[in-house]
Amino acid sequence: MPTALYGVAGWPLEQTLSPLLHNTGFQALGLPAVYLRWAIPPEGLASFADSMRLLDIQGASITIPHKIALMPLLDSVSEQARLAGAVNTVHRDGRKLCGENTDVTGFLCPLAEFDAENTDVLLLGAGGAARAAAAGLALRRFRRVFVATPSDRSHMPLAEHFGCIPLAWKNRHDIQADLVINSTPLGMRGKQMDETPFDFEKIVRPRGNRTLTAYDMVYNPLETRFLREARLAGWDCVSGLSMFLGQGAAQFRIWTGQKLPIQADEAVKAELRAREKIPAECPASRVENTG
Amino acid sequence: MPTALYGVAGWPLEQTLSPLLHNTGFQALGLPAVYLRWAIPPEGLASFADSMRLLDIQGASITIPHKIALMPLLDSVSEQARLAGAVNTVHRDGRKLCGENTDVTGFLCPLAEFDAENTDVLLLGAGGAARAAAAGLALRRFRRVFVATPSDRSHMPLAEHFGCIPLAWKNRHDIQADLVINSTPLGMRGKQMDETPFDFEKIVRPRGNRTLTAYDMVYNPLETRFLREARLAGWDCVSGLSMFLGQGAAQFRIWTGQKLPIQADEAVKAELRAREKIPAECPASRVENTG
Repeated sequence: MPTALYGVAGWPLEQTLSPLLHNTGFQALGLPAVYLRWAIPPEGLASFADSMRLLDIQGASITIPHKIALMPLLDSVSEQARLAGAVNTVHRDGRKLCGENTDVTGFLCPLAEFDAENTDVLLLGAGGAARAAAAGLALRRFRRVFVATPSDRSHMPLAEHFGCIPLAWKNRHDIQADLVINSTPLGMRGKQMDETPFDFEKIVRPRGNRTLTAYDMVYNPLETRFLREARLAGWDCVSGLSMFLGQGAAQFRIWTGQKLPIQADEAVKAELRAREKIPAECPASRVENTG
Repeated sequence: MPTALYGVAGWPLEQTLSPLLHNTGFQALGLPAVYLRWAIPPEGLASFADSMRLLDIQGASITIPHKIALMPLLDSVSEQARLAGAVNTVHRDGRKLCGENTDVTGFLCPLAEFDAENTDVLLLGAGGAARAAAAGLALRRFRRVFVATPSDRSHMPLAEHFGCIPLAWKNRHDIQADLVINSTPLGMRGKQMDETPFDFEKIVRPRGNRTLTAYDMVYNPLETRFLREARLAGWDCVSGLSMFLGQGAAQFRIWTGQKLPIQADEAVKAELRAREKIPAECPASRVENTG
């Protein structure tokens, strides 16, 4: 059987963990497939779509900055990807290129047990990651979703599109959300690693046994400042790693029809633990948020 | 280390043995590399060159019908490839795509011990394979090279270009060549398998211990009718397999800087032996001549 070709396309291509995830999965199942890294500049995106058809590439993970621009170059785009306004996955239907968004699926993974109807959410940030989150929250019909962003009023289109309640950045500590989600890059390994979009000390813990959850879509470092401070304030914590593994597992299932083997998750976790030991200043240790 | 991508481009892509050869080589040396098969229609050739640059493909084997048409799409073409008028190998020099012709190298492999200056050659056929042969013969300065082709006068440009002596097809048995080379597809597995371009019974064996050699550039089947009849007439025989393995080993060295491991040769030989057992009528057992 010929080797099937997969890969991740982004620009610039940071140290993504997707090749490790998928190649470990392929190997564990003995599938004749390989997953590569493709640094595709924006002006090469149309050629990339041509290349996928020409070289019979079976699937691709799409990351920043191509998630939106690739959509019109595909033969079809799923409902979920349309809702999220972005594509992070390409798969084949014969000669056709099909777009999907498994960031939404991955985002929802750690929220499977949540009683959505009785949960108020505060979404911090309004970029691409926030869009995937808002799409996921809309699919699960969370009670109220507030959205706030440090960059002025850029959250208004997102709020309108997904029926979220816009909130001024300075007022973000004034509501009593059960679930606070960071979709900003604040806290990510690199220049902004020491930052956080939220001050958990400003939140008065509500009466009763209500569970409060902090969800960081960033997964590198595994515990961001946002999650560390949430933990110290007694919140439940969800790392972006669950989302990363979830979106990857959904891609793997679309491409192969099979469940991503546990060895793939373990390889990624081991790699992240190894990277935690690298000094934060080291540029080589940066990873992109998703993809 | 990321996986390096290689492959063979042709149209239609017959059951080529190149993936088996190179993938066995990569695996035996533990190199992180994979070699795929790409069926590229002629109208997709320019896109293929773009794809090689865009996806950072490290090398490609080029086969029929692209060996000539690809040349103007490359950044540079070697002297040897220019001489042969065709490219069967692409390798990278940084971002540049470089063309080489290892069919010439491969063709010469089994002739290394020949006393070229004292050898008269008869080359049968005047297509792409003949061009690689004529280029090789010219490099080694064989004494006289006669060329004849069943298709009328199509050997004249080749004869002129390489300084060969053109011979009418009906006169091909009249000269006393020490080395007779079949570059036509006659005898290849498929429709023409029972044919041969030469009648060894028409050749009067010269006096003395002069060695006569029959060289078939076809390698599937391993023993063509041409070689079988040569053997029965007491000629030394060279199968196209030596050339195939030689051109592949030269590609492997260009791409990796390393010698193609013996396991790769063995895998190809085992596969060909297995195919010999498949009935000749079976279309699935066809392999292209080179590449």
